[in-house]
Amino acid sequence: MELQTNTIKEIKRLKIIPEFEKSAFTIINHLQNSKNLLLVTHTNPDGDAIGSCLALYHYLTQKNKNVTFILQSPIPTNLQFLNGIDKIHFLLNQNNFKISPDFDTIVVLDLNDISRLKTLRDEIELSKATKIVIDHHQEPKDFADYYLIDTTASSTGEILFKLLRKDSSINWTKEICESLYVAIMTDTGNFRFERTDGEVHRIVAELIDYGADPVKLYNEVYNKIPFNAAKLMGLGYSKLESYYGGKLVVMPIRHKDFLETNTQEEDTEGFVESLLSIDGVVMSILIMEVVERNEIRVSIRSKGDYSARNLALNFGGGGHINAAGCRFQNADFEVTKQKLVDKASEILY
Amino acid sequence: MELQTNTIKEIKRLKIIPEFEKSAFTIINHLQNSKNLLLVTHTNPDGDAIGSCLALYHYLTQKNKNVTFILQSPIPTNLQFLNGIDKIHFLLNQNNFKISPDFDTIVVLDLNDISRLKTLRDEIELSKATKIVIDHHQEPKDFADYYLIDTTASSTGEILFKLLRKDSSINWTKEICESLYVAIMTDTGNFRFERTDGEVHRIVAELIDYGADPVKLYNEVYNKIPFNAAKLMGLGYSKLESYYGGKLVVMPIRHKDFLETNTQEEDTEGFVESLLSIDGVVMSILIMEVVERNEIRVSIRSKGDYSARNLALNFGGGGHINAAGCRFQNADFEVTKQKLVDKASEILY
Repeated sequence: MELQTNTIKEIKRLKIIPEFEKSAFTIINHLQNSKNLLLVTHTNPDGDAIGSCLALYHYLTQKNKNVTFILQSPIPTNLQFLNGIDKIHFLLNQNNFKISPDFDTIVVLDLNDISRLKTLRDEIELSKATKIVIDHHQEPKDFADYYLIDTTASSTGEILFKLLRKDSSINWTKEICESLYVAIMTDTGNFRFERTDGEVHRIVAELIDYGADPVKLYNEVYNKIPFNAAKLMGLGYSKLESYYGGKLVVMPIRHKDFLETNTQEEDTEGFVESLLSIDGVVMSILIMEVVERNEIRVSIRSKGDYSARNLALNFGGGGHINAAGCRFQNADFEVTKQKLVDKASEILY
Repeated sequence: MELQTNTIKEIKRLKIIPEFEKSAFTIINHLQNSKNLLLVTHTNPDGDAIGSCLALYHYLTQKNKNVTFILQSPIPTNLQFLNGIDKIHFLLNQNNFKISPDFDTIVVLDLNDISRLKTLRDEIELSKATKIVIDHHQEPKDFADYYLIDTTASSTGEILFKLLRKDSSINWTKEICESLYVAIMTDTGNFRFERTDGEVHRIVAELIDYGADPVKLYNEVYNKIPFNAAKLMGLGYSKLESYYGGKLVVMPIRHKDFLETNTQEEDTEGFVESLLSIDGVVMSILIMEVVERNEIRVSIRSKGDYSARNLALNFGGGGHINAAGCRFQNADFEVTKQKLVDKASEILY
């Protein structure tokens, strides 16, 4: 056995994709020459969407740019602690919003399909500003001037980090690092989803070195379950049903459960995903009675190749392979549940 | 704004503690000159204890050493997937075990107090083998020949990684990397506890590059909740009680809850910690009725400076500042619960 005299092994460098590097260089150059910038992201924004927009917002204001960050949906409660949230321009239910001709650049983050911009779509299409897309989703649509896309990236936050580091004079402030940390943390499920590779951890290492506090940020984002929602979750778990040798679990939540815990639909956030932590489960179904709309609402999650989407499609719903949903109007709760369980067998076997 | 021509910033190197480096060099040298090694760790071993021992076991067998890894407790179910588990020599309830004089080296991992070795204590003290301690806990006791200690490290796995990288000819096999990944992942609560710094993420990045699969390892360790335990958790959550403006939550689990879900005490693993995810909670108490022993068993967890230990001490229990417990014999459930809640006010205000 040989012993190293230089005991510290050279850390692997971040991987370089030539085309990505070229785009990044073009875009960081364009940003420095811009004066008035508009930042937009998708509706129902998640941690990656909001974190990435805020990081870019903080960077651009550091560079003395005029920046407007528009959101078309409210911000989830657990992300409202982020620095800069008070600077967001909210555009809720306003269909007649006009994008000022003063904007020379529009940056679209965590989104590559203009149709997901809903009411802003036409305005952005008509705008003469330079349009830049920074995103990690599959199949980008052709509507922008510049694209910084890496579909193998864990998150838009990861891509934005690689863009911003092209600016050697950047000041990695705590607010930039916290925003990027939250973007990456949420889109990797706290470093446990597919695409969490060595590169993600090396970027996160730098963000922590520059001032992001992993303990605080985890607490802010994940340790915010409302007490009543925790009780509702308890009722759901206590009534869990297991099928097909434990491959499928079903959580029924009835109207009286909401009443008993003084909760609403939104309080079930995260329930159906959490069921995948049960030993042997490859598919989970949350079935909720929403009497206000005479509706039975169904959320489906799955692991690997088992398709939640295919189950939902059977009932007029949709979604992704591992996260989908559907709704039933004026239907019987128990009958609907049984239909779902029966149909699931086609996917699980 | 200046643009970097060399766009990839030099990654920060791992921090170097001179004394630590010197010890590591001495110890890796000693290991290569050893022939017969015994590895031991504490009773009720966790992921860091087992992961670190297995990583060292795999490394030493790679170096053609004779290695014996002794455990005095069974292995938690969720760690039994680890490669090498079948090589462990179990020493359960054997008080007359003799350590062979053939061992030239004993390595004690994730432990620095010989008294925690229980029945092995005297044997190790009497053994003439060279004793090495690799650990990250506070206040090491004086019983070994060599120490590799860093009390600021996240885990023993982190320290062991830094030791093994001193051997330039090491083959970072998948089994070594998986063991170290599990050690670090479990002791950092999946990268969210105090001491999760940039260095931890850089080490984890290397382990992933060398073949540790973060998705698989997370699933193996954390997504193994037994179905019945999930139902028991549901019953507990559905009966949650909140005190002092939400700073304290109490989860009562009665004998009938165990009966109804066909579960046992061990199935409550993780319940009391999970309560700290509820918004505003700084202390959580799990109070369980164990009729087999006429006992009420109490687990307490807390955040920051709020002392779970101080609450437990009031009732003859003990533990750490953020994790403690106590037991009551032949006591009334409701009366005991009220005593705990009342006493907690002294800590919370």
